[in-house]
Amino acid sequence: MENITKIWLGPLPEDSPYVKPFRMYYVQNGVEKNWDLLKVHDSVAIVLFNTTRQKLVLVRQFRPAVYHGVIASEKGGFDKADLKAFPPSIGVTLELCAGIVDKSMSWQEIAREEMLEECGYDVPVERIEQVMVYRSGVGSSGAKQAMYYCEVTDADKAHGGGGVDDELIEVVELSLEEAKRMVQQGAVNNSPPSCLMGLMWFFANKAPSSA
Amino acid sequence: MENITKIWLGPLPEDSPYVKPFRMYYVQNGVEKNWDLLKVHDSVAIVLFNTTRQKLVLVRQFRPAVYHGVIASEKGGFDKADLKAFPPSIGVTLELCAGIVDKSMSWQEIAREEMLEECGYDVPVERIEQVMVYRSGVGSSGAKQAMYYCEVTDADKAHGGGGVDDELIEVVELSLEEAKRMVQQGAVNNSPPSCLMGLMWFFANKAPSSA
Repeated sequence: MENITKIWLGPLPEDSPYVKPFRMYYVQNGVEKNWDLLKVHDSVAIVLFNTTRQKLVLVRQFRPAVYHGVIASEKGGFDKADLKAFPPSIGVTLELCAGIVDKSMSWQEIAREEMLEECGYDVPVERIEQVMVYRSGVGSSGAKQAMYYCEVTDADKAHGGGGVDDELIEVVELSLEEAKRMVQQGAVNNSPPSCLMGLMWFFANKAPSSA
Repeated sequence: MENITKIWLGPLPEDSPYVKPFRMYYVQNGVEKNWDLLKVHDSVAIVLFNTTRQKLVLVRQFRPAVYHGVIASEKGGFDKADLKAFPPSIGVTLELCAGIVDKSMSWQEIAREEMLEECGYDVPVERIEQVMVYRSGVGSSGAKQAMYYCEVTDADKAHGGGGVDDELIEVVELSLEEAKRMVQQGAVNNSPPSCLMGLMWFFANKAPSSA
């Protein structure tokens, strides 16, 4: 799915709308300290369960930050990536349907829009239930993420999903057995903790009792 | 615990050892795209269960990134913080014992060291069990985090914990009931998803059957 032919790095432009890094200074017990951090967007994520098919609906996509992170863990980083040694597939993740909060609409509305754009399900906001709110990246960004749960049926499917504009997003349906195996063995697919947590929450609170 | 009297922001120095931001360029299906991201350290986190007291051992601390993130979610950000409107306590988190991978020792050794420094428990690495590995911050950093589990007893306690150097870390013991409430209602204490996930994993796999 990736079809990526070249990857390289450049400096962060000062006007990046996505990543704003800075240093915070503070005085604690009379001692001046500092911490380097960055501002990123808040976000929503949705645990999506198709009751017609009894499948959890997730998304698969190439994540530049993960591609870089995998190489950084192994050899510190790169300027121009060696795609033979590090194929783009190492940067592909399996995640919950999610999106950043960058529009002036309610968080629930943004969740609704992401479900439609990424996964093709068209449901009214009233059917989207808030699960929990937490802070991710407590060491670097402290951005807020709200997790939602929504049950959908095949009748809610408006189109095949896949994202808008340049996005390349593959919709993945996991059986309950597959999802359970995933939370038991950990993230074999570069899944973030929010995805694993969402699946664990589903099994503890929503899964059919036979699962 | 915070005792913080002043908080302000400045630009990120170019030589920050903690946050290295940049822009990644890539060509996908013949189209050049880019993504802003940053390199942060990989890390370890430990689900710590004191079997003598039947308590989960977590840590509480002021997190500059969370303090900023809470204000950013509400009003976009600040240059010099208004401590009356936004007291430092809004940046305090309840988390798993954790630490960054910035030394040339095994990840398990780093986990061992963090348990000793932050929580005061001195245990051999053989007693530290790997739970799972995942990527956090898939949108911004893609850093690797390994989660471990360790059962300790009061006999393993070498000192009171609290961190080294300038760290100000408070050790918090949660009863099984308190921890269960926390994963059910979500992160009332700015907890990151990795902490909530670790507790859910504990209840699904390790908690005494009465819990």
